[in-house]
Amino acid sequence: MAAPTHPILVVGSVALDAVRTTQEMVIDVLGGSASFFSLAAGMFAPVRLVAVVGEDLPKEHHALFRERGIDLEGLQVKPGKTFRWSARYSGPRLESRVTLDTQLNVFADFHPQLPDKYRDSRFVFLANIQPALQLEVLDQVGDADFIACDTMKLWLDTEMAGVERLFRRVHCVLMNDEEAMQFSGENFLPAAARVILSYGPRCVIIKRGEVGSLLFTRERVFAAPALPLETVRDPTGAGDAFAGGLFGALARAGHAEEPALRQAMLYGNVLGSLAVEDFSVRRMVKADAAEIERRLSTLVRMISLDEDHVLKGR
Amino acid sequence: MAAPTHPILVVGSVALDAVRTTQEMVIDVLGGSASFFSLAAGMFAPVRLVAVVGEDLPKEHHALFRERGIDLEGLQVKPGKTFRWSARYSGPRLESRVTLDTQLNVFADFHPQLPDKYRDSRFVFLANIQPALQLEVLDQVGDADFIACDTMKLWLDTEMAGVERLFRRVHCVLMNDEEAMQFSGENFLPAAARVILSYGPRCVIIKRGEVGSLLFTRERVFAAPALPLETVRDPTGAGDAFAGGLFGALARAGHAEEPALRQAMLYGNVLGSLAVEDFSVRRMVKADAAEIERRLSTLVRMISLDEDHVLKGR
Repeated sequence: MAAPTHPILVVGSVALDAVRTTQEMVIDVLGGSASFFSLAAGMFAPVRLVAVVGEDLPKEHHALFRERGIDLEGLQVKPGKTFRWSARYSGPRLESRVTLDTQLNVFADFHPQLPDKYRDSRFVFLANIQPALQLEVLDQVGDADFIACDTMKLWLDTEMAGVERLFRRVHCVLMNDEEAMQFSGENFLPAAARVILSYGPRCVIIKRGEVGSLLFTRERVFAAPALPLETVRDPTGAGDAFAGGLFGALARAGHAEEPALRQAMLYGNVLGSLAVEDFSVRRMVKADAAEIERRLSTLVRMISLDEDHVLKGR
Repeated sequence: MAAPTHPILVVGSVALDAVRTTQEMVIDVLGGSASFFSLAAGMFAPVRLVAVVGEDLPKEHHALFRERGIDLEGLQVKPGKTFRWSARYSGPRLESRVTLDTQLNVFADFHPQLPDKYRDSRFVFLANIQPALQLEVLDQVGDADFIACDTMKLWLDTEMAGVERLFRRVHCVLMNDEEAMQFSGENFLPAAARVILSYGPRCVIIKRGEVGSLLFTRERVFAAPALPLETVRDPTGAGDAFAGGLFGALARAGHAEEPALRQAMLYGNVLGSLAVEDFSVRRMVKADAAEIERRLSTLVRMISLDEDHVLKGR
């Protein structure tokens, strides 16, 4: 824990969400890819947040980010309303999502502007926003050690050329399994991963929700199991919390080589497991380092074949 | 490989299958839970097969079993036709199945009769047949070291009392995730596993197809990843091949304690991965010990966090 940690730069959305599940409903809670990412990564390393919000974003959210050591110099506050997103989840484990409404508001005119001091960031995460904006960020950073991007089905449908340009400029692509198959036109993940790797990234991380995540590099595959969940209260933000845990662990390690990358995948799954246990970022911000390490140990034992390790119990 | 191996007893179905996929179709190929199981387990240890077939089962299938060292003294050959099963698969990875037809034929009057020499079997697998027949087998075996059963949705719908009686008398239950949730009434696997364990088994294995399998014991969970598949030609029999690989590895180890049980889960996934690469048992019977060990090594490396191990490549 005393290792040098490197600041992480994230660009993405900060939103106010309305979420309805089979049992419950919340309105105007803190959401957005960059929020989940920052608060997850912030448990491991300093975070620099680039995003835009309206003047209506409650002061308590600004305060929460600051409390967690998240640098807000890159957070633009504009006249008008914050990005709004609303969705409904259904199914026994809330595994089906329908997006009900998206109001871009101040996000409509967003162009990421990196403060000068952010330009030397060694770990850069381009959360899911328009590929054109993700590319604008890359034009403002230097030679980072590890740049990863997320994306979504909408951009594969409408901005495929931008997605391809983006993939040529990052070290790592994060996607879910359906997106990977759509992008590549392949039905099986190893082939889909090879297509993505052919654009240049050195790794592809496939997020598979409640079954865990897979790391494909040119030579190897790592299967990071999901923590067996006892409940899911709100799946929103799980993928961004995953990315935050992953980046946090990498920044703490100071590099993104295996096997540190493998362990970071497990930290990602830990943060994802926390995110879904309550609405918004509520459960995640209640966790402390000890709880994160306990969940990590559970995951490590879940894939251990070593006798001493296995017999220690859970 | 020089360890003493113990014969495995399996009771289940031997069938002639008709399978249609999006691209291809086969008729009257060797199928049935006990066929896939026996040929998978037979790569590790002697197998004793209890089932019934009609006089129409081609001689070549009898010959295949014999060649593979499978003891057929418990295989009843009755006047009439062999059990017929027919299904159609669809979806990009053939992940959706519709059963088109089931003709019980000689299976309709089947009652398992164990040859006397089978009664001391230490490893017993009750493949998916009516719970009443699975229970008849248990009345004919002694104190086995490891008895496991499979089941299916049909018996949960129609023979729940029999399934419950069965679960009280086995060491291990194998099910897929949907069956585990239906049986337990729980939406999340850890809770579902606890319900099943409360009947007495000391482990529950949840088969999840292309995403791997989970082993729940009272204290621990093990996540066995699936081999990342490059193709699926026919998913039939994958679960029974999994069980055969699992039992084969346990019989070869001579016991069913962790961590041997964990390694056996991986062997199960290896045999499942082979089963789906061609129709019927074709691909599985082409595999040799070296190929099985190579696939096992791939799986072991897929969950390894150890630097030396990871950097060896795949």
